Amino acid sequence: MTTTELIDQIKIKKSFLCVGLDVDLNKIPPHLLALEDPIFEFNKAIIDATHDLAVAYKPNTAFFEAYGIKGWISLQKTINYINEKHPEIFTIADAKRGDIGNTSSMYAKAFFEDLNFDSVTVAPYMGKDSVEPFLAFENKHTILLALTSNEGAFDFQTLHVSGTRGEAEQSGAKELYKQVLETSKIWKNSENLMYVVGATKAEYFADIRKIVPDSFLLVPGVGAQGGSLQEVCKYGMNANVGLLINSSRAIIYASKGRDFAEKSREEALKMQQEMEEILYKTQKQIGI
Amino acid sequence: MTTTELIDQIKIKKSFLCVGLDVDLNKIPPHLLALEDPIFEFNKAIIDATHDLAVAYKPNTAFFEAYGIKGWISLQKTINYINEKHPEIFTIADAKRGDIGNTSSMYAKAFFEDLNFDSVTVAPYMGKDSVEPFLAFENKHTILLALTSNEGAFDFQTLHVSGTRGEAEQSGAKELYKQVLETSKIWKNSENLMYVVGATKAEYFADIRKIVPDSFLLVPGVGAQGGSLQEVCKYGMNANVGLLINSSRAIIYASKGRDFAEKSREEALKMQQEMEEILYKTQKQIGI
Repeated sequence: MTTTELIDQIKIKKSFLCVGLDVDLNKIPPHLLALEDPIFEFNKAIIDATHDLAVAYKPNTAFFEAYGIKGWISLQKTINYINEKHPEIFTIADAKRGDIGNTSSMYAKAFFEDLNFDSVTVAPYMGKDSVEPFLAFENKHTILLALTSNEGAFDFQTLHVSGTRGEAEQSGAKELYKQVLETSKIWKNSENLMYVVGATKAEYFADIRKIVPDSFLLVPGVGAQGGSLQEVCKYGMNANVGLLINSSRAIIYASKGRDFAEKSREEALKMQQEMEEILYKTQKQIGI
Repeated sequence: MTTTELIDQIKIKKSFLCVGLDVDLNKIPPHLLALEDPIFEFNKAIIDATHDLAVAYKPNTAFFEAYGIKGWISLQKTINYINEKHPEIFTIADAKRGDIGNTSSMYAKAFFEDLNFDSVTVAPYMGKDSVEPFLAFENKHTILLALTSNEGAFDFQTLHVSGTRGEAEQSGAKELYKQVLETSKIWKNSENLMYVVGATKAEYFADIRKIVPDSFLLVPGVGAQGGSLQEVCKYGMNANVGLLINSSRAIIYASKGRDFAEKSREEALKMQQEMEEILYKTQKQIGI
């Protein structure tokens, strides 16, 4: 999917909601456990109930790998279902991969070719040659971890770094996550980059937008983890919206009963309506 | 497997060789492609030919994931084969995972419980709560990326960082990879940590040993990528050897003919003999 198609979907649906499919068998409605593939059946029901309210789905690979081959089959069925039934949806493999060049190529093949996701999350620690193999795929998107939403983000990502390489050298000491943003901009096919930026510190978005004004940001941490949608939009939205706000648990685990899909729709609808309101106000102000 | 059992194996086999199982269907002997599971058959032949010369095998998950469910089945068959036929072998899932706490727990479950690997490689970018779920498993080992062997290692890992958190605060500016080593030492169950340190700059090992004198280091980059075994051992070996030297392509792709397993043994034997010689000399010098 192209970025333009994603922006069009945001305008059509008046939503920039991403639903995280992090399926834990201990948390889904017990009546599903009797089915042959409870993970897929759960995902299918959530997707059927929310696909007109969300522009993206984000299965986290950990939750599938934990169930071995069965889990991998559930992942494949889930992505195939979205691609066949709802090809207008932007799909994200939340896999946080990254390895040396030829190995990253294999990961890119796994997620972009074999599974046919539109995008994959990638960790930046191993640098340029660990990310560029993902960027080489046309109309596929690489979502680089910048500032994550967890407590451990403050262990390394916010440390000040200096002694940088190449073009960034003149720019002086800055937090590691900002250096990741800066450095990644000069990588080959960097127009295929998006970034993960957690919602927990909304004011950080102002600085981030100075470095990557045009890029899409995938934002976890709104809701359950304490981030505010209003604040994130205030500092992080650009002329193309430029935000995908992820919600996982608040939507998919809204109920453990037989009404779980309806309840997930109610939660997704609340978020979509809040987003529509923000888009309406922003349109009046700055013309999005 | 406990660290003591690993050290015993190193002494018995007079080897600290790890064989990387990075199986690319384009590089294996063509006659295997007619078999039902060429990846597993290739691995099985390599393992049968080299298990007495190596103390560890390291399948890289990317090379299995690239083939989808079939690949995941090959990975499961490979690890099961090693665990059943050669339980004395230390197994490494080279997966470079890492995510927020509850998600990392799912990855730990995938590799330690479902697949039953002895260890898994983990990326440090997301900090403490992304790594501690792996460390919680008894007699399982978490191999944290510190300084990798690729060119991109110099994009972020060797930048100088300052403004660190907690106990490390007094220690002043240092390269990011050293900060990763320092910080990780205070995490819960840090005795279950090992580290990835590339061989490309052997003199770095002297500084690294000042920070983590007792930890095992998994060392890629000897041979094909230009690192010297002698130099790495000179600076990196400790009283328990403390090194696992990985070789992938030089061993597994030694021949593309029907003699591929024999040829892989010849290459592994060369490395084991060089290691035995180093151990013999070091024993005379410092009593390993």
